[in-house]
Amino acid sequence: MLRNCLENVRRKAPMVHCITNYVTANDVANVLLGCGASPVMADAPEEAAEITSRCDGLTINMGTLNQQKLLAMRSAGKQANQKGNIVVLDPVGVGASGFRMEAARQLLKEMKFDAIRGNLSEITALAAGCRTSRGVDAQQTDMMTEESMGAVWELANTFAKETGSIIIVSGAIDVVCDGKNGYAIRNGRREMRNVTGTGCQLSGLLTAYLAANRTCKSEAAVAAVCAMGVAGEIAWERLQEGEGNATYRNRIIDAINRMDSKILNARAKVEEL
Amino acid sequence: MLRNCLENVRRKAPMVHCITNYVTANDVANVLLGCGASPVMADAPEEAAEITSRCDGLTINMGTLNQQKLLAMRSAGKQANQKGNIVVLDPVGVGASGFRMEAARQLLKEMKFDAIRGNLSEITALAAGCRTSRGVDAQQTDMMTEESMGAVWELANTFAKETGSIIIVSGAIDVVCDGKNGYAIRNGRREMRNVTGTGCQLSGLLTAYLAANRTCKSEAAVAAVCAMGVAGEIAWERLQEGEGNATYRNRIIDAINRMDSKILNARAKVEEL
Amino acid sequence: MLRNCLENVRRKAPMVHCITNYVTANDVANVLLGCGASPVMADAPEEAAEITSRCDGLTINMGTLNQQKLLAMRSAGKQANQKGNIVVLDPVGVGASGFRMEAARQLLKEMKFDAIRGNLSEITALAAGCRTSRGVDAQQTDMMTEESMGAVWELANTFAKETGSIIIVSGAIDVVCDGKNGYAIRNGRREMRNVTGTGCQLSGLLTAYLAANRTCKSEAAVAAVCAMGVAGEIAWERLQEGEGNATYRNRIIDAINRMDSKILNARAKVEEL
Repeated sequence: MLRNCLENVRRKAPMVHCITNYVTANDVANVLLGCGASPVMADAPEEAAEITSRCDGLTINMGTLNQQKLLAMRSAGKQANQKGNIVVLDPVGVGASGFRMEAARQLLKEMKFDAIRGNLSEITALAAGCRTSRGVDAQQTDMMTEESMGAVWELANTFAKETGSIIIVSGAIDVVCDGKNGYAIRNGRREMRNVTGTGCQLSGLLTAYLAANRTCKSEAAVAAVCAMGVAGEIAWERLQEGEGNATYRNRIIDAINRMDSKILNARAKVEEL
Repeated sequence: MLRNCLENVRRKAPMVHCITNYVTANDVANVLLGCGASPVMADAPEEAAEITSRCDGLTINMGTLNQQKLLAMRSAGKQANQKGNIVVLDPVGVGASGFRMEAARQLLKEMKFDAIRGNLSEITALAAGCRTSRGVDAQQTDMMTEESMGAVWELANTFAKETGSIIIVSGAIDVVCDGKNGYAIRNGRREMRNVTGTGCQLSGLLTAYLAANRTCKSEAAVAAVCAMGVAGEIAWERLQEGEGNATYRNRIIDAINRMDSKILNARAKVEEL
Repeated sequence: MLRNCLENVRRKAPMVHCITNYVTANDVANVLLGCGASPVMADAPEEAAEITSRCDGLTINMGTLNQQKLLAMRSAGKQANQKGNIVVLDPVGVGASGFRMEAARQLLKEMKFDAIRGNLSEITALAAGCRTSRGVDAQQTDMMTEESMGAVWELANTFAKETGSIIIVSGAIDVVCDGKNGYAIRNGRREMRNVTGTGCQLSGLLTAYLAANRTCKSEAAVAAVCAMGVAGEIAWERLQEGEGNATYRNRIIDAINRMDSKILNARAKVEEL
């Protein structure tokens, strides 16, 4: 299953339109190229819908949001829905400002997302429409534990039913819910939090995986989450004496690039909930 | 010849103003620093002309284009022409939207470019004023072959005559045409397509090479194309077990940084057409 | 002293709001994560003040400045002052255009900076309100020598008194002045100039260090400057055959990430002036 999902990305080479932040855009582009997809970065309202109509999937990432980008997101999202493209939302730092929360509410009202991915504080803030997130990266309270997993699953599952989207909550344990089935993924390393943009990269990857596996989107989401986590593990094992978070960043993308379905299958740790 | 071109960049350290996309801006800056030039990234209409007037060359890269950047490009381009600076156009994804095509047409009407560099679908779209390019990165149809090279040369040569610009078509084989002479360069590796921004980097490099070699611009363009291709080859040879496209990215820039004229001369594969 | 400063950053994990350029934003984020701080990149006027009010420090970096970013800087800066947050200015390329100089003047009038960091041409231009800087990166004339250090100290000290800010002048020798005490730091390597954004990274680091060491801000500034210089030295020593400025970039951030107070203390070269 996971095996097929990865191979379909390489075989179909989906074109993914990214309206994303400038902090991690380069990494997202390289992760997409690394997994076999083809990225197009474009965020002008004048061209967003047209660009999207030539693509297979759309990633909407709310980092470094501004009014112009928001117009592009709204225009592209509607067009992608109309064309039947995959659309993924990454509500970066949505609880950190009223501007982002209002923007997220507007997007959720105007378009349908195939998947929404964030850390626990982001998904909590988005689901509650309230502002509890302290910042952009996952905080202490985001550290999902075996104890809190039930509550997280409950939250994600309810939100999945409300939105009709697959909800992916990233953390020490990753949770994937589609409103019916749930999965806990125990791959990855906590040191991935010391690399900016691993969440953004995963959201890009999710878009590629869903776009190449339209008949089994929940499984594709699980496969993408596993791939990112396994890449974090392989990259960590390959780190040499004295290397830190910048080299770790490169080795994670390298691992996505070099991963084959055999490795993914052998290392994925998925539990059905 | 190639030898002198590279050495002139290191000796003259041209200052290159880049109005470029945010996806690959960091790589373009590091490639320029790596080859011995000095980058200045600035894209506000309020300062673009003034910044350019203090520089030796200007790169206009249409990735992540927006209205404000376009105003800056128009203002800087005219100023650069007036001052006699080198101006290079990289029409990223020009066939992907009407907005970009219209912008490109406007730029071509308002200013003169010393060189225009793109992949085959971009140059084709730009030359035809039509929209055949599927996206930003080179597609299957872009794979220039020995068989298609004659047609590519024809296209590039005609466009060179129309614009008065040196036309550089990037692909498996790179073609450089100035409307009179043509060159085929057989350096580089196809894996360079898995690294975002190698095209943007080459356009930056071209600007530096032309700015430092104003009396032999066609040869300087050939030298820059060879340098980028040779860097891709050296970087590939230096890749270690398990490394992928992210590390390849770094090693390509490293190779530009460490390249000397002896290496460039020994490895360049240039054929006059 | 230096020892405590570094450890306080790791222990307190200050949240640093960055309004910064898109060229080096990824590196600044990774340096902040690497040193133990938590970065938030946000530059929309609609949310800048609210984001800042949730943070401990604010970096205002004038690279790729535009009107919208400037509005965000003004709004966030005032809010940060009101809340008593640390605010650091990096006047990137301030002498390169009237737009940047005017913006810098406005910022200096409307808010108080705990620290201002630039190379010699930037600090000179800013202090004089004139335009002598040729571009963004430090030029030949910026090469601070043992001979010119007295004059540099004089300039920085006067400017520190005028602004009430700690002034940090980056160069072959770094100078830190608070209007009373002065320090010369002889760490770092000149090859750091071949990596784009090492100045931006230091400005981010300064914000984190000051935010985590509010009772000894001048010492914290010295510690941050030493940390960056020592990282540049360690990274250089770790470079392998054939590696260049791109890998150097990664190894510098790695070194910040792996640095402990023992290394910093042992290698810091600080002289009181």
